[in-house]
Amino acid sequence: MLPVEVMKSAADSMLDYEGAGMSVMEMSHRSKPFEKIISDAEENLRTLLDIPEDYYVLFVQGGATLMFAMVPLNLMVGSGKADYIVTGQWAEKAYQEAAKFGDARVAASSKENKFSFIPKLPASGFRQDADYAHITWNNTIYGSKYAAVPDTGGLTIATDMSSSILSERIDVSKFGCIYAGAQKNIGPAGLSIIIIKKELVGRAKDGTPTYLDFKTHAESGSLYNTPPAWCIYIAGEVFKHLLSRGGIDAIEEVNRCKAAKLYDYIDASKLYTAPVAKEDRSPMNAVFVTGDEELDKQFVADAKAEGLVQLNGHRSIGGMRASIYNAMPEEGIDKLIDFMKRFEAQNA
Amino acid sequence: MLPVEVMKSAADSMLDYEGAGMSVMEMSHRSKPFEKIISDAEENLRTLLDIPEDYYVLFVQGGATLMFAMVPLNLMVGSGKADYIVTGQWAEKAYQEAAKFGDARVAASSKENKFSFIPKLPASGFRQDADYAHITWNNTIYGSKYAAVPDTGGLTIATDMSSSILSERIDVSKFGCIYAGAQKNIGPAGLSIIIIKKELVGRAKDGTPTYLDFKTHAESGSLYNTPPAWCIYIAGEVFKHLLSRGGIDAIEEVNRCKAAKLYDYIDASKLYTAPVAKEDRSPMNAVFVTGDEELDKQFVADAKAEGLVQLNGHRSIGGMRASIYNAMPEEGIDKLIDFMKRFEAQNA
Repeated sequence: MLPVEVMKSAADSMLDYEGAGMSVMEMSHRSKPFEKIISDAEENLRTLLDIPEDYYVLFVQGGATLMFAMVPLNLMVGSGKADYIVTGQWAEKAYQEAAKFGDARVAASSKENKFSFIPKLPASGFRQDADYAHITWNNTIYGSKYAAVPDTGGLTIATDMSSSILSERIDVSKFGCIYAGAQKNIGPAGLSIIIIKKELVGRAKDGTPTYLDFKTHAESGSLYNTPPAWCIYIAGEVFKHLLSRGGIDAIEEVNRCKAAKLYDYIDASKLYTAPVAKEDRSPMNAVFVTGDEELDKQFVADAKAEGLVQLNGHRSIGGMRASIYNAMPEEGIDKLIDFMKRFEAQNA
Repeated sequence: MLPVEVMKSAADSMLDYEGAGMSVMEMSHRSKPFEKIISDAEENLRTLLDIPEDYYVLFVQGGATLMFAMVPLNLMVGSGKADYIVTGQWAEKAYQEAAKFGDARVAASSKENKFSFIPKLPASGFRQDADYAHITWNNTIYGSKYAAVPDTGGLTIATDMSSSILSERIDVSKFGCIYAGAQKNIGPAGLSIIIIKKELVGRAKDGTPTYLDFKTHAESGSLYNTPPAWCIYIAGEVFKHLLSRGGIDAIEEVNRCKAAKLYDYIDASKLYTAPVAKEDRSPMNAVFVTGDEELDKQFVADAKAEGLVQLNGHRSIGGMRASIYNAMPEEGIDKLIDFMKRFEAQNA
């Protein structure tokens, strides 16, 4: 979901962006209007997340899948070792990709427990000579999220925040590299955002494709080649919108309320169960089941008939999943709970 | 430039695409409406370019820069040799990137002549044991274009068609791999199109990042990870628009007329010169100079004051460049020539 205000303004300026006589989709990425779009976007993102000066903000293409390769190609350059915590399908893909490029190891995994919790690994559980530890901050499919930054004993942390970025305050300085595909909380698919400590840039492995080297984008202000201009423009509009809503703390509070409402109802209900450990539950993706696969399917179908769409769980696990990203208003949660109550009454 | 009709329809459906109750920017890429968007886009592109069945059509991110790595990683897998014809800055970058991954060689170059022509290399000029030959079909910066497919003696040809795709009929079967960034003739930046012979897929080098393996996209119908949905949607609308204009032959005829008008005027003028060899001139990018750098700058400034924008030559060579892509109407050329005449009269 994107904020309605952002889409309305995008539609209005489709043929003529701020008097430029052309659409953002048509602008040269070296033109003044576009340079302002990308530098404003970076500045507003820095404000929102309080990003320190010694971090680059990069806008690149390729999604998290490309990042799964970029991270090891750029960071696995000391001992060649990296420790991955596997908390879901995407975390596992990140690990498998890293294993192509060096000594990647699964330091902990909750796979045998259907990814229903975040493994709490002590610092001693990480190889202290590893180049970095990798975690997936929010697990979209399974509905779990880190509640706190793990203690890695000082090891650089790289993290995939695709499905939670901008939903809560994070302390950027605790991470070496934060990356996120834009399509959950930021803007249209086709854009990834990288927040990377400057000292980690410029050390890529020999033979790293130019586009996959952080340095390529850092040295050119993300303008080495034609950037995904439309996606950056929409992302920039979303950043402005979030600032106008009061910034991250205000948004986090709304997200906390929305999630608490839904999980409280689920926990009180006799029909629904949330399989994820309470302390690890994601405020972005609430996963729940009835315990009866056929009834789950009925739930999804009935909900859809009432206009509550995209409530099916990921095709790999089934059940239900409510994705309650930033742009989902509290009324959306109320409508969902209202439907859940009626469905429970009918199927008690 | 994009067709006005396409942008108007994109603006109209911004908040609700064909009754789906959401924007294309918000759709799941596994939803029915999006599956139709991407399959229609592929089908219409196949119709436009008469793409044979034994070729895949892939939609990926990363632009030509990422393609410069993808081509050698996927194709330089036999002898590990590849021959590049260097006809401009982008061709040179393609060659430099390939040299990271194997025995890439510059088989011919017009660099010493400021890239003012396309080297005509006989088949014997290519290493016959090379895995492929690479050419840049249209050279955006220098305004040159291949008039015919070179005879490589049967060597697979990979070509960058970023700035000319869909402007003219091409015989796809003469190429092993055609790739193009979308931002010139197709749609918004952030999308590349790959047309690749099926037998060339599935042979990537060990250690190729998953996203850079043609197979990843071929086996998943370009849906391995979240695709740049908005860019694919706009590209699909452009394909429909081109079909409604009569398809490639009709478009090629218009482009031929537009280019002939402009080059004929330049050749007849006493002030302007087109530096590219006549037989190699690009109908997409017409490069011309007055022979006086200060006067060139004056031209660009005066033109801008009259609303004729983006006429400056690429920052690396200066002079003037009129980019007359598909979406530029014939009236645009008339206006330009009218201005050029007046400028010539004033500065004779």
